[in-house]
Amino acid sequence: MTNDLFNHRTIRKYKPDAVSSAILEQILLAGIRASNTGNMQVYSIIITREKDIKDKLWEIHFKQDMVRQAPLLLTFCADFNRFVKWCIQRKANPGYDNFLSFFTAAIDALLVAQNIAIAAESFGLGICYLGTTTYQADPICKILDLPGGVVPVTSLVIGYPDETPDLTERLPLKAVIHHETYHDYSPTDIDELYAEKDQSVLTHELITINQKETLAQIFTDIRYSKHDNVLFSKSFLEVIKNQGFMNND
Amino acid sequence: MTNDLFNHRTIRKYKPDAVSSAILEQILLAGIRASNTGNMQVYSIIITREKDIKDKLWEIHFKQDMVRQAPLLLTFCADFNRFVKWCIQRKANPGYDNFLSFFTAAIDALLVAQNIAIAAESFGLGICYLGTTTYQADPICKILDLPGGVVPVTSLVIGYPDETPDLTERLPLKAVIHHETYHDYSPTDIDELYAEKDQSVLTHELITINQKETLAQIFTDIRYSKHDNVLFSKSFLEVIKNQGFMNND
Repeated sequence: MTNDLFNHRTIRKYKPDAVSSAILEQILLAGIRASNTGNMQVYSIIITREKDIKDKLWEIHFKQDMVRQAPLLLTFCADFNRFVKWCIQRKANPGYDNFLSFFTAAIDALLVAQNIAIAAESFGLGICYLGTTTYQADPICKILDLPGGVVPVTSLVIGYPDETPDLTERLPLKAVIHHETYHDYSPTDIDELYAEKDQSVLTHELITINQKETLAQIFTDIRYSKHDNVLFSKSFLEVIKNQGFMNND
Repeated sequence: MTNDLFNHRTIRKYKPDAVSSAILEQILLAGIRASNTGNMQVYSIIITREKDIKDKLWEIHFKQDMVRQAPLLLTFCADFNRFVKWCIQRKANPGYDNFLSFFTAAIDALLVAQNIAIAAESFGLGICYLGTTTYQADPICKILDLPGGVVPVTSLVIGYPDETPDLTERLPLKAVIHHETYHDYSPTDIDELYAEKDQSVLTHELITINQKETLAQIFTDIRYSKHDNVLFSKSFLEVIKNQGFMNND
């Protein structure tokens, strides 16, 4: 059994120590072994180590300290640009400027990212995903010079951990699995499945700090508000279109 | 180092042997340790083992034999339904009926899927992703009774391998990585990076069998045609909208 999977912790504090090129290469090679669509490998990984580019990315990733602290920042992109260029050079007529192709390439990029996260952890490195990547896809395209056919979908901060956090809790397994067909949740199911989360010490602390009535209100009013979600939905869809993935006719 | 990552092979022929409940549980538990957005766990996994439902899914997954052969089929869904129900029961006003929320939940589901693929392989099981999941999201919603807020994004066939395929080739690592900014590909770069793929024995066999001039034409004309991509783009976007994720104003 791959025990690494059970030991995953998101790391938000990093030592300044560099990751050697040899280790980085192993991690990347493990990454590209991930399953991908038709072996087209329609993704690219942008590696950021230089201070000036990292500072720009730190700024748009909501100035999260770890982006500057960690030696490595990898941006994972859905990428049909390279494949389309190959098609054209090989007398083939590509039809990959549509939403399905974008989503296919996004799946490829995300599976590679998770392989890389696991490989990095197996070398004693820590990782953190940056959900801000889709919110800020537009400035990321500019900072990283992404051409048409390329859209950033997630990022990983990677470096040696400078903290040893506890495992975060998860909902009970039965909360997220369904046998044969989807069994929708009754109010009693919800109460039961979220009981531990609702009643945890961390939840009580968060409610007090944020002056809210429930944990759910912290999500809806502060962390992931409708206002922000709508704003970022528009800008992300605009990037997908501008990068050439919305010709669906 | 997690050698499993380097030994991944997609398996398309399976023994009929069942996967024990104990092993399945370990795999699923490893799956939900994956990073996810704000620990909201906005995904669900539908487990198919019954013959009648598997037959229906086999039919819409382009009748690929392995779907019926393998004992397990897991369908991974972006799922805000459960989280939204919790929000409402906890006096919070959710705003997760937009594209960003769909994509966020899709990322969660895909990272869990890849953890499960890796965990399954560590038990000697084989896996195969089904790219047909997004093409056929509409019939899958019906077969699996998926409510609003739930969209299937990928599937995994899992079982004991009945074949031992070679590792598939990958492009050289430098083809998919970029240092600091994206360095676009010149015609010479494309020729160099795709040389091994263009000239492989498998490629020559495929070109002969399919009566095409180049491997790229097999992709554009047969495997992933513009006609199909446009058709599936429309239907997948329609599912995303119908399941309640396109209220972006």
